[in-house]
Amino acid sequence: MSVQAVYMDHAATTGVHPEVLQAMLPYLGPEYGNPSSSHRLGQVARQAVQEARERVAGVLNCQPSEVVFTSCGTESINLAIKGIVKAAGGRGHIITTAIEHHAVLHTVEQLEREGYESTVLPVSSEGLLDPQDVRRAIRPDTRLISVMYANNEIGTVQPVAEVARIGQEAGIPVHSDCVQAAGSLALDVDALGVTSLALSGHKFYAPKGVGVLYLKAGTPVQVQQQGGGQEGGLRSGTENVPYIVGLSVALERAHARREEYNEHCSRLRDKIFERLVTQLPDVRINGHLTQRLANNAHVSFRGVEAQAILMGLDMKNIYASSGSACVSASLEPSHVLKAIGVPQEYIYGSLRLTVGEATTEKQVEYALEHLPPIVRRLQALSPLATT
Amino acid sequence: MSVQAVYMDHAATTGVHPEVLQAMLPYLGPEYGNPSSSHRLGQVARQAVQEARERVAGVLNCQPSEVVFTSCGTESINLAIKGIVKAAGGRGHIITTAIEHHAVLHTVEQLEREGYESTVLPVSSEGLLDPQDVRRAIRPDTRLISVMYANNEIGTVQPVAEVARIGQEAGIPVHSDCVQAAGSLALDVDALGVTSLALSGHKFYAPKGVGVLYLKAGTPVQVQQQGGGQEGGLRSGTENVPYIVGLSVALERAHARREEYNEHCSRLRDKIFERLVTQLPDVRINGHLTQRLANNAHVSFRGVEAQAILMGLDMKNIYASSGSACVSASLEPSHVLKAIGVPQEYIYGSLRLTVGEATTEKQVEYALEHLPPIVRRLQALSPLATT
Repeated sequence: MSVQAVYMDHAATTGVHPEVLQAMLPYLGPEYGNPSSSHRLGQVARQAVQEARERVAGVLNCQPSEVVFTSCGTESINLAIKGIVKAAGGRGHIITTAIEHHAVLHTVEQLEREGYESTVLPVSSEGLLDPQDVRRAIRPDTRLISVMYANNEIGTVQPVAEVARIGQEAGIPVHSDCVQAAGSLALDVDALGVTSLALSGHKFYAPKGVGVLYLKAGTPVQVQQQGGGQEGGLRSGTENVPYIVGLSVALERAHARREEYNEHCSRLRDKIFERLVTQLPDVRINGHLTQRLANNAHVSFRGVEAQAILMGLDMKNIYASSGSACVSASLEPSHVLKAIGVPQEYIYGSLRLTVGEATTEKQVEYALEHLPPIVRRLQALSPLATT
Repeated sequence: MSVQAVYMDHAATTGVHPEVLQAMLPYLGPEYGNPSSSHRLGQVARQAVQEARERVAGVLNCQPSEVVFTSCGTESINLAIKGIVKAAGGRGHIITTAIEHHAVLHTVEQLEREGYESTVLPVSSEGLLDPQDVRRAIRPDTRLISVMYANNEIGTVQPVAEVARIGQEAGIPVHSDCVQAAGSLALDVDALGVTSLALSGHKFYAPKGVGVLYLKAGTPVQVQQQGGGQEGGLRSGTENVPYIVGLSVALERAHARREEYNEHCSRLRDKIFERLVTQLPDVRINGHLTQRLANNAHVSFRGVEAQAILMGLDMKNIYASSGSACVSASLEPSHVLKAIGVPQEYIYGSLRLTVGEATTEKQVEYALEHLPPIVRRLQALSPLATT
């Protein structure tokens, strides 16, 4: 990335922070032992994984033995949902929401193909779940409730603690996809009250290819990957020592800087909202104005196509997104925007701008200087736009 | 690892080669894009993954679209076995061997718990499978044959091409765990004739935490991890760009150096065998003498315990193993050694010495200077040893 580039796609991925890379490098170098080896080189690697587990447990306020390292958020989510639901035996029912990441929704769909049933709860036009909807959806055969903490597209923050309380009262495990929340929201599992939660390293300045599943002690779970019995038998496969170390350092670091990060990002985000709303007609803010991640600005412009906006931004070295990176190849409007009822003439012109800890005022100014003319030019060409 | 240390546990894991690390570093640094992002930073990452896929396809002599990147060999194996067997619908039968890695055996056991049946074929006392046993085990409902190419403990090389021919004749897909074979044996999927094969980066100087599944075009497979649809929908989860690049460079490098590597390693291995057999009584070579990996020496000493030998070696900074790293925590004799019928008085005194491309004559001499006295001292204390 050239130094002039303005990266406003932190929700898609972050870069590895230099401090995180430094912590990883010994394990990509001389300390290459297999944690399962009994000799000293193996012991060093085993010790590194154990310390990483303790570091993560410190942030999550759980036992180290409740931390399972995986290869990504998607794997964590698959393991939690399939693992918990299948451990219950027989078939059953799952409750989730319409704005979950595809890692949740497609996993639930796979379970449906296997005979399970699901209730996919709607959210409000502001992208918020009503916890009472969860209570009403509970059936005698409900095996799991899965509700994300923060949405990866529109950034809305869900009432996970309330959902978890409802689950607890009904004796139903509650999983939370916290992939997008990490680094911004508190992840104290006691306060949240969840049975399990999923994290992905690359959302908080660790690399792509490592995740965490917190799994409350005593939770029955069907293992999804069999083999050498690593991770307490819950996730076989030789441990990715460098990334596990990197994730733990990055999580601890992000957790410690959370307040500063939120203050910094929300100031930039609010500037984006304010300027776009005042400078452009026909702009719509997606997601609740305050119940949202500090770094997420999500807007829709009437009568234009996101791809054209993104191309215009790209030519100015501004990197943004129309929604989830995972579906960016598709021209279909996102399921999240459909779920919050973005009107047809706005839905194709949706733009996600997500800032990060290193995003500067100057970069945001630069983006805000170039974005409105691009939108105006496109709207001038559009039969759907009012101007 | 101190410079004086002698690492003879390359079958457990290898270090990341400096050239491989160099190829990875840009993606742990400025080129941190998510391959699914449409902007330029994403395009750079997408291009890197595509080039890596082509590099791997070049070594395997397959189409790039037949290469699936995973998080490890274990995941590749789980996806191949469960994916192929479950795609066939209904229940069915699986053929495998008694000396497979636990990633295969425990996956087959999981399928048995779900109602599938299996035939686990024996091997000869030299650790070799008779392909005719495969032919005889085939049933009308056989869904998959899974035979490893090279054994991870005793290093024996199985007649995979013959097994694949038998599978082809019967119209049954053949999977091969090639994790330990990579870097030493040819992996031309046309010559092997397999339907799928699994690789793990950390066995050939790429990092731990990345694997490959080759899956022949048109093979029906049930996806095991749902989400954003990466890897052609076969393996969701944001791509581990640095490790994917590293694996591809390491595989190409290892493939190009194969002849040199095999010559170098087999010379060291044969020296180990010769010296141990001539210097010690009551030593047994495990696995066929020539139908084995160039870098693998596996021996058993009568009446001693491997742990004591390993501790003695460790004190001399010689790092070895009693068998698979994945089960080194267990005191149970390995299923592989049981399968080849290592006698009771030998089985607990088993030692795996696996050399690598950087292992020197001098290091091997050092190990061979210290190992015999350790074994003799332990045998002198043992009621089971003859000396």
